[in-house]
Amino acid sequence: MKIAVLGGDGYCGWATALYLSARGHSVAIVDSFVRRQWDHELGAQTLTPIRPLSERINLWRELTGNNIETFVGDVTDYEFLASAIQEIEPEAVIHFAEQRSAPYSMIDRRHAVFTQVNNVVGTLNLLFAIRETVPDCHLIKLGTMGEYGTPNIDIEEGYISIEHNGRKDRLPYPKQPGSFYHLSKVHDSYNMMFVCKVWGLRATELNQGVVYGTMTDEASMDEGLINRFDYDEIFGTVLNRLCVQAVIGHPLTIYGKGGQTRGFLDIRDTVRCLEIAVLNPASRGECRVYNQFTEQFRVAELAEMVKTAAAEIGLSVEIDHLTNPRVEAEEHYYNAKHSKLIDLGLEPHYLSRSLLDSLLGVATKYRDRIDPSLILPRVNWRRTSNERRSRTNQLPVEFHTP
Amino acid sequence: MKIAVLGGDGYCGWATALYLSARGHSVAIVDSFVRRQWDHELGAQTLTPIRPLSERINLWRELTGNNIETFVGDVTDYEFLASAIQEIEPEAVIHFAEQRSAPYSMIDRRHAVFTQVNNVVGTLNLLFAIRETVPDCHLIKLGTMGEYGTPNIDIEEGYISIEHNGRKDRLPYPKQPGSFYHLSKVHDSYNMMFVCKVWGLRATELNQGVVYGTMTDEASMDEGLINRFDYDEIFGTVLNRLCVQAVIGHPLTIYGKGGQTRGFLDIRDTVRCLEIAVLNPASRGECRVYNQFTEQFRVAELAEMVKTAAAEIGLSVEIDHLTNPRVEAEEHYYNAKHSKLIDLGLEPHYLSRSLLDSLLGVATKYRDRIDPSLILPRVNWRRTSNERRSRTNQLPVEFHTP
Repeated sequence: MKIAVLGGDGYCGWATALYLSARGHSVAIVDSFVRRQWDHELGAQTLTPIRPLSERINLWRELTGNNIETFVGDVTDYEFLASAIQEIEPEAVIHFAEQRSAPYSMIDRRHAVFTQVNNVVGTLNLLFAIRETVPDCHLIKLGTMGEYGTPNIDIEEGYISIEHNGRKDRLPYPKQPGSFYHLSKVHDSYNMMFVCKVWGLRATELNQGVVYGTMTDEASMDEGLINRFDYDEIFGTVLNRLCVQAVIGHPLTIYGKGGQTRGFLDIRDTVRCLEIAVLNPASRGECRVYNQFTEQFRVAELAEMVKTAAAEIGLSVEIDHLTNPRVEAEEHYYNAKHSKLIDLGLEPHYLSRSLLDSLLGVATKYRDRIDPSLILPRVNWRRTSNERRSRTNQLPVEFHTP
Repeated sequence: MKIAVLGGDGYCGWATALYLSARGHSVAIVDSFVRRQWDHELGAQTLTPIRPLSERINLWRELTGNNIETFVGDVTDYEFLASAIQEIEPEAVIHFAEQRSAPYSMIDRRHAVFTQVNNVVGTLNLLFAIRETVPDCHLIKLGTMGEYGTPNIDIEEGYISIEHNGRKDRLPYPKQPGSFYHLSKVHDSYNMMFVCKVWGLRATELNQGVVYGTMTDEASMDEGLINRFDYDEIFGTVLNRLCVQAVIGHPLTIYGKGGQTRGFLDIRDTVRCLEIAVLNPASRGECRVYNQFTEQFRVAELAEMVKTAAAEIGLSVEIDHLTNPRVEAEEHYYNAKHSKLIDLGLEPHYLSRSLLDSLLGVATKYRDRIDPSLILPRVNWRRTSNERRSRTNQLPVEFHTP
């Protein structure tokens, strides 16, 4: 199948592009490299030394004989995007090409506005480009479990049947997003639902949980194909961060009580979910929503798991509760449905000791690249402007790499 | 009270500014005149000959002794907006400053993107400006009843209590907006709800129905204060359009079956609702939602009422059903709650014969300014690009003003 992967140079995008290419699909990557730019802006970098896209793709071709085409440009530039889609003629478009960090969107007004404009306009452009050039193409859009927030009722997959005053309807599930980034994803969801209705597009929204892991079969083939591993306060996700902290002897930091419960999944399941969505397209006019995660964990529980795994390889670490920089419930009910992808054949890789060992192994291997000053949260949800202070000044001495 | 009216040169904004000024409030208008610019773009103009804002404000001061300050600039320009808010130091901000036409947002990609960026960024800027300069100020934001769409259950005021699998929560009412414009208002609602929570702002969202009428006590004081009366396919609302059609002997045009039911209100109730909201501020951290309309009508029912009123002043008109240019249910359940503003003291002006006579009177008085070529819909929801054809070419001969 001809598949366009928008944002294919990013974390989920790169793993997905390789996975689909390995399975014989004709894959094209559309990317502007703005994600790499944000690392420069933040003075951060991925723990793993990722190569330039052109180099990675040449290596992939040498190793497998599979070609991945690239289109370099920004999805907010309609002329570029429409011409790329026209040239690729995809049967499926996978849209990862968004600013995906909640803290980044909460830095200040400029970052909030940028995040919403970038994500909303990019997605609007894509919807128009599909309608105008490949109207039968299946759009697979990454949403986030964070769109739902933490309601006191079960979270369904996109829609909920409501009985109210003796009448019934099936309606979009109420959203309670918790950052300007999460809000941008909600805006996208509504825009997408609308165009499926008025233009008859076919779309699948994958509301993804927190992804962990860096190794997929493909990315493991050669060091030169290695994927991102972000651990900084802005783009790092919780499990990566905890493993990096364990390796450098930094206390495992939990924001607030740690009772925050979220859905999680292994990057190997992310790529398989994308394949499942691609192979089972939505109908014309349908805007389907799948919750894409395999397990729920409380953050404090993850910290305990990392602490135990670390201890068994001789790393002794404490757990530290920080004042929560976010505004979120720290103890709450959470029961999110996630059976639709399983019904279509997903066989989850549950979080295991061996996976934690592998993450700790990656962190150990690249330990010299760890910058401890990037780990502690500096973006406070309650402020409208967060100074990103000089990194060396704010770093407690005991956290320096020995 | 010191009140900033953003978009105070527009239809609802002008009526509201005068009404509040007449009641002794200190009113400042913030406007960029982009609404007048859109008329030029579309080759349309208000039926009533409105004067430049500076002239209207001078006249108002001569007539009443009340001064209305003006700040000319765009809310999407943060430096401008923040400095205006800082100088005004408002206790309440009323935010009308958005692109408010569904057909305008559906013309093509450029207009869709413009509408969403303009509205979302303007509102984000305002939220940041309030938080940074006047955090205790009460924000009153115009939403629209169109955010809810036409669900098969009763529409509540902003939130709904849901019982699901044995648990309960009060959640944002599910939205089903029907155009890129309506979507932009939903995006705003979510953004606003979020900042009330994280920054403790106080906000009231008024989900307004379709407003009709042009005369308020204040605007009637002098011809020079007259308000807008839009009847064109892009900015005109249904009742204005029907009255203009009756006056020129144009069939009253209904889109599709005409079973579309919407909430309506008199412009005199709009201004009173705004006053009620201003006088009863939301609490810190509260994002309150009121549905602002007084009566529900089916479109076909309104056409019958206009036809009858017209006949009694000697105007004979037919009713014509056009192929619906929009994608919407043409027969549906509709029961939207709207008691909160009544509980706070709103005494509705229900749609009456005398009001219809007054609208027909305005249309008759300015009959020479009617351009019949502006009335028929040319923006089709099913297309991604609508050519706004040469006006003279597309006009059926029998519709020319005799």
